[in-house]
Amino acid sequence: MASYHVVPLERLIEQFEKMPGIGHKSAQRLAYYVLNMKDGELKALTSTLEEAHEKIHYCSVCCNLTDQELCPVCQSTTRDRSVICVVEDPRDVFALERINEFNGLYHVLHGTISPLSGVGPDDLCIKELLNRLSDTNIREIIMATNPTIEGEATAMYLSRLIKPLGIRVTRLAYGIPVGGDLEYADEVTLTRAMEGRREL
Amino acid sequence: MASYHVVPLERLIEQFEKMPGIGHKSAQRLAYYVLNMKDGELKALTSTLEEAHEKIHYCSVCCNLTDQELCPVCQSTTRDRSVICVVEDPRDVFALERINEFNGLYHVLHGTISPLSGVGPDDLCIKELLNRLSDTNIREIIMATNPTIEGEATAMYLSRLIKPLGIRVTRLAYGIPVGGDLEYADEVTLTRAMEGRREL
Repeated sequence: MASYHVVPLERLIEQFEKMPGIGHKSAQRLAYYVLNMKDGELKALTSTLEEAHEKIHYCSVCCNLTDQELCPVCQSTTRDRSVICVVEDPRDVFALERINEFNGLYHVLHGTISPLSGVGPDDLCIKELLNRLSDTNIREIIMATNPTIEGEATAMYLSRLIKPLGIRVTRLAYGIPVGGDLEYADEVTLTRAMEGRREL
Repeated sequence: MASYHVVPLERLIEQFEKMPGIGHKSAQRLAYYVLNMKDGELKALTSTLEEAHEKIHYCSVCCNLTDQELCPVCQSTTRDRSVICVVEDPRDVFALERINEFNGLYHVLHGTISPLSGVGPDDLCIKELLNRLSDTNIREIIMATNPTIEGEATAMYLSRLIKPLGIRVTRLAYGIPVGGDLEYADEVTLTRAMEGRREL
């Protein structure tokens, strides 16, 4: 029986399959979505892709994504310039900005040290972070890398580089997530929650 | 606190959010994937989108997707031209081709009759199907629309139009799915499986 090949459609599905979190079925669905787009809609999609790809780059200070020389946080005149919160990923900045709690600056590493994946310190924006530390106003670096093995290792690595400079290095608190259930918390999290207990 | 706005990035995330099955988090992930693409990769993505959108259209006979005048199945000289399998969606053709069991032709409706969503018979490729029936060689139409309310209604509607022409109209068998569990089968499926039982 003839197998059904429509080359441009297969290529389109392949392109979607390369994207993170998109399997074959989702890729098919997205391909049909594209085929059903009106000409103007497709034009808007491709030009948005091209525009974002062309204009967005790293902020020259904190390495977050921006379409200007400096990102909005680094540009801001109302932020506390003595604290830098170090995160793995630009999405983490969005997450922290949403809580409206932190008013300092950020630094985006764009990954974590991970020898197994061949990612060393030189592949991350660590040099850029160290350059910022010559500013004598900086009193604290908050390590907000993820609580994973790689995130911990990266935080430890950076803290060993930064502490000798006389700057305070802190780590986000570990504990049971709000709204979570003690029964389902893993042992490491429970141990950390116990260790980090505070006076009521 | 400054809220973080990078307009081209937000536009890109919005474009992905419009796609089926893509929520905000996935859209962010896809946007970062695009930003990290090499120039050549992005070019390949946008040109694949444009090429597929431009070249792919409905087969002039069966309304399946193709980049030629006729789709590969309608072009084939080895297929049984006396049977037409009617499906809702081009993906259903792929699914049926994979089982290597059916050697007839297809007809793609591109949807189902759904008054609630404002989709009437004229919005589907029903006229094209009826046009094909003037071919006196056709002996059977297999209704392979989905076993949903809309799929059933569409199959019933078509069967009422086609049966008077003296052509046999069949429907895919209902029953318990292979590898499924009786305990979890719904009542309607179990009833249909019982009604459709066959001699061992």
